[in-house]
Amino acid sequence: MTITITAFERSPDGGQGLARDTRVRWALEEVGQPYEVRLVSFTAMKEPAHLALHPFGQIPTFEEGDLALFETGAIVFHIAQRHAGLLPDDANARARAITWMFAALSTVEPPILELGSARFLESDKSWSAQRMPLVKDRVRDRLTQLSARLGDADWLDGPFSAGDLMMVSVLLRLKASGLLDEYPNLSAYVARGEARPAYKRAFEAQLAVNKPPAG
Amino acid sequence: MTITITAFERSPDGGQGLARDTRVRWALEEVGQPYEVRLVSFTAMKEPAHLALHPFGQIPTFEEGDLALFETGAIVFHIAQRHAGLLPDDANARARAITWMFAALSTVEPPILELGSARFLESDKSWSAQRMPLVKDRVRDRLTQLSARLGDADWLDGPFSAGDLMMVSVLLRLKASGLLDEYPNLSAYVARGEARPAYKRAFEAQLAVNKPPAG
Repeated sequence: MTITITAFERSPDGGQGLARDTRVRWALEEVGQPYEVRLVSFTAMKEPAHLALHPFGQIPTFEEGDLALFETGAIVFHIAQRHAGLLPDDANARARAITWMFAALSTVEPPILELGSARFLESDKSWSAQRMPLVKDRVRDRLTQLSARLGDADWLDGPFSAGDLMMVSVLLRLKASGLLDEYPNLSAYVARGEARPAYKRAFEAQLAVNKPPAG
Repeated sequence: MTITITAFERSPDGGQGLARDTRVRWALEEVGQPYEVRLVSFTAMKEPAHLALHPFGQIPTFEEGDLALFETGAIVFHIAQRHAGLLPDDANARARAITWMFAALSTVEPPILELGSARFLESDKSWSAQRMPLVKDRVRDRLTQLSARLGDADWLDGPFSAGDLMMVSVLLRLKASGLLDEYPNLSAYVARGEARPAYKRAFEAQLAVNKPPAG
């Protein structure tokens, strides 16, 4: 059965790999599953056909036979459960890897999303400059804790897992802010993720969609 | 094997059931698993013994035999996978229920957390009143989409699942804001969750910890 995912017709980040389809592409590359991509415009994302697939009008979605999923975390988890390579076999280790997926999305990413809102949606507001340090400190609180837990390990809990895939993807959003540079072990952790061949293939594939035509 | 979870010694909400141990208690009540609770003070939460269990120094945690987990979503998912009652048997329906768990935590809850930060951490700031409508509108964006998807169904996708448990828990955080009242079908959805005997038992159990002593 063919796997089809959706991605932005034109990603707001111009191909930096921060759109969430990169996370799903990365997971599919790690487990060696081919996939097709259907590109969706900003207009089409808010229309009934796409809303039927994704109630929040976002990308990515995932279709395989009669299964249709939305929500990046759920899609990556589904891929990790169906194919070897992203979750350990041992039941306890598997539960811990899944824990890191949830931690990335519901504990580490929310303050990073808030920083994104402050930078991109509130930069023209009167409070923007004064409020920014406060927002950054909320991100630092999480990074300090994550850095302490990671220590000098390569990955969060044993071998690379879907938990690391998600955590690295979340941290990549901080690159432009410079915050990651304050935590050398987290910077190195993200670099290890980016160096994986599967990540590189995923990154190139999303870039090919967003690269301005040559010439 | 005994299941032990952690909860606040004194919840910041004074027993309104918004602390995240209520979500785990609810899941355990739905599947009929007894559990013990270890209460943790704010000081102890930031000390090495608790940080070893929970790298972000929060509650709840989950211990059973030699398995230790943190992160509410992961704990509820673990309970739902191990015991009947919170996830459908059919593989596709199961993947969709898991999708709603992730949607609750990583799409619907982040703007609600941001509203919480605005109300409780920034209420004394010069920008507070001016910024609030903007923060509330971000929550409304999500509620409008969720309300459209739910329609007049009882639950998000077929019978009650861990996805509904998580979504209702996330929406409960909006009660004091009045925002939920703008969406009658979502208010009714939350009320259906609260009316479940398992929720009531979970709520009473957390209230018993936080109730001021009588007399």
